[in-house]
Amino acid sequence: MKKLAIYAGSFDPVTLGHLDLIRRTAEIFDRVILAIAAESSKTTLFTREERVLLTQEAVKDYDTVEVDSFDGLVVDYVRSRGGEVMIRGIRAHSDFEYEFRMALTNRKLAPDIETLFMMPNESHSYVSSSLVKEVAKLGGDVGGFVTPEVKAALAEKFSH
Amino acid sequence: MKKLAIYAGSFDPVTLGHLDLIRRTAEIFDRVILAIAAESSKTTLFTREERVLLTQEAVKDYDTVEVDSFDGLVVDYVRSRGGEVMIRGIRAHSDFEYEFRMALTNRKLAPDIETLFMMPNESHSYVSSSLVKEVAKLGGDVGGFVTPEVKAALAEKFSH
Amino acid sequence: MKKLAIYAGSFDPVTLGHLDLIRRTAEIFDRVILAIAAESSKTTLFTREERVLLTQEAVKDYDTVEVDSFDGLVVDYVRSRGGEVMIRGIRAHSDFEYEFRMALTNRKLAPDIETLFMMPNESHSYVSSSLVKEVAKLGGDVGGFVTPEVKAALAEKFSH
Amino acid sequence: MKKLAIYAGSFDPVTLGHLDLIRRTAEIFDRVILAIAAESSKTTLFTREERVLLTQEAVKDYDTVEVDSFDGLVVDYVRSRGGEVMIRGIRAHSDFEYEFRMALTNRKLAPDIETLFMMPNESHSYVSSSLVKEVAKLGGDVGGFVTPEVKAALAEKFSH
Amino acid sequence: MKKLAIYAGSFDPVTLGHLDLIRRTAEIFDRVILAIAAESSKTTLFTREERVLLTQEAVKDYDTVEVDSFDGLVVDYVRSRGGEVMIRGIRAHSDFEYEFRMALTNRKLAPDIETLFMMPNESHSYVSSSLVKEVAKLGGDVGGFVTPEVKAALAEKFSH
Amino acid sequence: MKKLAIYAGSFDPVTLGHLDLIRRTAEIFDRVILAIAAESSKTTLFTREERVLLTQEAVKDYDTVEVDSFDGLVVDYVRSRGGEVMIRGIRAHSDFEYEFRMALTNRKLAPDIETLFMMPNESHSYVSSSLVKEVAKLGGDVGGFVTPEVKAALAEKFSH
Repeated sequence: MKKLAIYAGSFDPVTLGHLDLIRRTAEIFDRVILAIAAESSKTTLFTREERVLLTQEAVKDYDTVEVDSFDGLVVDYVRSRGGEVMIRGIRAHSDFEYEFRMALTNRKLAPDIETLFMMPNESHSYVSSSLVKEVAKLGGDVGGFVTPEVKAALAEKFSH
Repeated sequence: MKKLAIYAGSFDPVTLGHLDLIRRTAEIFDRVILAIAAESSKTTLFTREERVLLTQEAVKDYDTVEVDSFDGLVVDYVRSRGGEVMIRGIRAHSDFEYEFRMALTNRKLAPDIETLFMMPNESHSYVSSSLVKEVAKLGGDVGGFVTPEVKAALAEKFSH
Repeated sequence: MKKLAIYAGSFDPVTLGHLDLIRRTAEIFDRVILAIAAESSKTTLFTREERVLLTQEAVKDYDTVEVDSFDGLVVDYVRSRGGEVMIRGIRAHSDFEYEFRMALTNRKLAPDIETLFMMPNESHSYVSSSLVKEVAKLGGDVGGFVTPEVKAALAEKFSH
Repeated sequence: MKKLAIYAGSFDPVTLGHLDLIRRTAEIFDRVILAIAAESSKTTLFTREERVLLTQEAVKDYDTVEVDSFDGLVVDYVRSRGGEVMIRGIRAHSDFEYEFRMALTNRKLAPDIETLFMMPNESHSYVSSSLVKEVAKLGGDVGGFVTPEVKAALAEKFSH
Repeated sequence: MKKLAIYAGSFDPVTLGHLDLIRRTAEIFDRVILAIAAESSKTTLFTREERVLLTQEAVKDYDTVEVDSFDGLVVDYVRSRGGEVMIRGIRAHSDFEYEFRMALTNRKLAPDIETLFMMPNESHSYVSSSLVKEVAKLGGDVGGFVTPEVKAALAEKFSH
Repeated sequence: MKKLAIYAGSFDPVTLGHLDLIRRTAEIFDRVILAIAAESSKTTLFTREERVLLTQEAVKDYDTVEVDSFDGLVVDYVRSRGGEVMIRGIRAHSDFEYEFRMALTNRKLAPDIETLFMMPNESHSYVSSSLVKEVAKLGGDVGGFVTPEVKAALAEKFSH
C-alpha cells in the first residue's frame, strides 16, 4: 500500500486550515511531505525560504511530516520523491472547481499518481491564505486563523 | 432594535444594481450608510473622492442614506459608527461563495456584527462594476447599467 | 423602520441551526414570528401541532419570538400579520439556489415584502431537518443537532 | 498507517464509475470493503441480495476487495469492521454538496473516521445509478455505463 | 445546415419561460418541434393529452412550431423525426448540473445529435413548472408565470 | 434561418477543446467565424497575429470556418459581419457563471443577437488556455491538450 502522501501548495503563509489537514493526513499515512511550490501563477508575499521556515515551525511536533520545496510541475516532484498519492483540501465550491481541473490535468500528465481530497474542520472552512493576508494588511487580528509565528511574520511584512 | 444598516463596498463605480439594493435597505432600516472602501485588493478606476461624489449624486434623493469612505477593516469601521448590521447583495453563485467567506471572517473578527444578504431585482442580477467598466472600455453603451452621471464619468475616464 | 421579521419554514423538526438563526434575528428585530407551514411539497414526519409544540418549547426563553402556523402562500400569511420582512437561512450552495428562486417568486407575488438572508454559525452549516431525520431513523445520536426535547420526539417517532 | 478503506453506497446497481473508483482505491489501500447500505432514503430497484451479487460479480478479479452489506449508520458499520477511512467519489458539483454535508455529519458522529474523496475518470463523470436506471427503463442501451451482467439484470427488471 | 431543432421536455405545464425559449429557437431554426415526454421520472399533474393541448394553444401563433409527444428515449424520438439538434434552456446552476449530465448521456447514446443550450429572458429565470404548480396549489396568482389558458387549467386542477 | 455562427474568444492559444467545439459548430451551421478578441481584460501570451496564425493552422481542414480578429465589443463585431448567433462553450460551473453574465450583458446591448452554448467532449472538459500555459511554463508536456503547432509555439515562448 502507499505509505507516502504529498500535500503540495503555496503555503503563503501556512494557516490553521492547512494544519488541520496535515494532522488528518498524518493519521492516515506513514509519511507526509509538505511540498511548497517555488513558482506560482501569483506573486507570493513570503519568499520560498520564509514559507519553508514558517511551515517547518508550524509542523515541528509531527515526526512523520517533512517540509520541502520544489520547482516545476508538482507531478514531476511527486515522482522524484517516489510518491503516488497527493492530498488536497476542499473547503468550498470555488475550491472544488479549481481542484477538480488541476487533478484531472495532473492525472493526464501522470496517470499513476492519485489525488485524494479531504475536508478541513468546518471552523476552518472559510480560512485561506489570501484572506489571511488581506485581513492582516488592513490591520485585523489574524490570531484565529494562523499560528503565533505566522501572525508575527505577517505583522512584520505589513509594518513596512 | 437595530436602526442603522451599513452597506460597504468599492462602488467603483456605483451601478443600478447597487441603487436597487440601497432603495430596498432604506425601506427596512431607519438609517443607511454607504461605506466606500478606500483600499481594495484591486486597483480602482475611480479615486476615493470620485467614488464618493458619484455615489452621493446617485443617492441624493434619499434623506436617510449617508455616503462615507473608510480605511482598514470594514468591521472596525462599522463599530466606529455604532453599527451592528451590514448589508450585502448576492446576485449569483460566484458572489455567494466570496460573500459567505467574507461574512464568516467578519463574524470571527466581530461576533456582534451581523451580515444580512439581499437580492437585487433580477433585471440587475448580472450587472457588476467590473462588467460595466469592461463594456465602457470597449466603447459599449452602459446606459442600461448605471446613472447618466456615472456613464459620463466612465466616458471621460476611457477617452484618455 | 420594519420592526417585525417573519421566519417561515417547515420546522420538521426545529434544529440547532434554526435556533442559531432565531437568536440572530431576535437581536436585530423587535419582534420575530416563526411561521410553520402546514402544507408542504414533502410529507412531514411531525404533525402541524407537534411541530408547533416542539418549536415553542425550543424558543421559550425568547420574549419577542412568537410561534404560529399557516396555510397557503407564505406571502399571504406575512401580509395578514402586517409583516414586510422575511428571514431565510442560507447554509450552502444548494440552499442558495432554492432560496433565490423562492425569494424571486415571492417578490413577484408580493413586491412589498423583502427577503433577508442570514448565515447560521458555521458549526451548524451542514445541519438540516432531513439529515437529522435520516440519522435518527438509522439509530444515530442526534444530540449534537437538536434540542433534548426534539431528540426525544424523534426517538419516539422511530421506535414504532 | 490505515490499511483498510471502506467504500459505502447503495450500488443500485454498481456502475463503471463505481468500478473505476474501486480500482483506484485498491491501488492505494491494502484492503477495500464495498459496503452496500441495506436501507436507503430512496426505494431501491434491486434487492439487497441482488445488489451484493451484482457487485461481487463486478469485482471478482480484485483479491483485496470484499463486498458486504449493512444496516444502520455507515459510521457504526465502519467501526464494527475496524475501519477508519471512508472513500467517496465526487463527480460533480451536485455530488459535492451532498457529500460534504454527509461527511461533516459523519465526522460529528464519529470524529475518528476520516472521509477521503476521489474523482472517477472523466469519461465516467456523468454516470450515476439513477441515470442508468432511467435510460434502461426507457429502453436505451446501457452497455457504455455498466457491466454486461448488470445490463442483463436491468433488462430483466424492466421487461416485467 | 441543420434546419430542424427539437425542444423536448415535460411541459407540465408550459410556462412563459418555455415560450420565451420557443420564440428564440424559432428565430434561429427553420422548424421547431416541441416534444412532450409521455413518461417521466416524476408523476405529471396534467395528462399527456392535456399537456399537448395546452402547449399547442400557447404556440398557435408560430407557423414553424409543431407540438408532438413521444414515448421512450428522447434521442430515439429525435432520430425518428430526422432531427440532429436538441435545444435545452438553462436558467440557473441547478439546471446546469442536470442538463450537463443528460446532454453527456444523450451524446453517448447518440453521438450524431447535438444539444444546444439557451438562456431565457432573465425575468423568467426563476420560473419552473414545479414552482408554478406549487404556487397554484397554495392559491397564489400564477398570471405572471403562465398563459391565461394554463392559469385556468391549473385553477381547475386544484379546485377539486 | 441563421446560417452563420460566430465563436469569439481570446484563443491564447487555441486548444483541442476549442477545436472540438469548432467541429460541432461547423456541423450545425453553414458558416463559422472564429473571432479573436484583440483586446482582453488579461494580458495575452501570444500577439494578435500569432493567435490568428495558430488558429488558422488548426482549422485549415474546415472549408466553412474563417478566422478573423476584432477590436471593441463582440456584439458590434457580430453585427458588422451580419451575424445573429454566437457560440460559447461551457465546460464547468465556473464557466457557466461568467458565460451567463456575459450573455445577459450582450443581450442587453444587442437583443437581436442570440448566444448558444455547447459542451465540448468530456475528455476536454478541464482543458483551458490558461491551464495549458501554466503547464507549459512549468515544463510539462501539453501534447494532450493542443495541436503540435501550438505545442511548439508554447515551447518557444517559454524557452526565452
